[in-house]
Amino acid sequence: MSGTNRFMDEALAEAKAAGERGEVPIGAVVVMDGRIVSRGGNRTRELNDVTAHAEIVAIRMACEELGQERLTGADLYVTLEPCTMCAAAISFARIRRLYYGAHDPKGGAVENGVQFYAAPTCHHVPDVYAGLSETASAEILTEFFRARRD
Amino acid sequence: MSGTNRFMDEALAEAKAAGERGEVPIGAVVVMDGRIVSRGGNRTRELNDVTAHAEIVAIRMACEELGQERLTGADLYVTLEPCTMCAAAISFARIRRLYYGAHDPKGGAVENGVQFYAAPTCHHVPDVYAGLSETASAEILTEFFRARRD
Repeated sequence: MSGTNRFMDEALAEAKAAGERGEVPIGAVVVMDGRIVSRGGNRTRELNDVTAHAEIVAIRMACEELGQERLTGADLYVTLEPCTMCAAAISFARIRRLYYGAHDPKGGAVENGVQFYAAPTCHHVPDVYAGLSETASAEILTEFFRARRD
Repeated sequence: MSGTNRFMDEALAEAKAAGERGEVPIGAVVVMDGRIVSRGGNRTRELNDVTAHAEIVAIRMACEELGQERLTGADLYVTLEPCTMCAAAISFARIRRLYYGAHDPKGGAVENGVQFYAAPTCHHVPDVYAGLSETASAEILTEFFRARRD
């Protein structure tokens, strides 16, 4: 899947902002009824919280915003393939559609790793659209790690 | 593994307290240097947060208490086999030893489901001790769901 999308552009903006805060640059937005209900970037270092990945930050904010535990009917856009923790959280939140940018062979859990959505212990499977703004999503990460090495 | 343990007893107390709040009764404690640094029960309903499982509540509190992102050297006691999300969060937090009570064929991710700690995308594997206070841990859950059905 290629092409761009305004919601993925917003997730990319969150990724860039995270990188500027010294966090691994990954961003996410939650969309409900065509409207962004939350935006999140990686905040693990800032919050001393290993669970504060972009997806979980955005899901928590959306639930708080909407006053509900689940996000049935909502879509999530994230710049990197979700990890095992986030793939499960996305399922628990009943996200309808998951759009992501770059693939993550090392830590991903959708097409890589444990492929959680294909597991019998996964009780809600979102529709998955991978590779949206893939190049831009990957470049933000590559640039960040290159700069950190230098 | 059988037998009881005072830290698992504390996790069981957290599970009971969660059930009294109307949450699925699962409890966890984080132990560092022989001292409990945090206790957590399931709070998904109270907080409208699908990620507020006992393990994640306890891990986040421990990180906040200690002012650090990782819990290297800490042990986690939890009454139920961790789910996919929590198994990954436990790995990310660098938990040294994971002790759990009841097995969870439907949602677990340690010996069941995706068996995350055996996956190549898992980059830190805790030592796992399963079945500690297994009967008591399972009975709290069985009782809770029986009472809810009635």
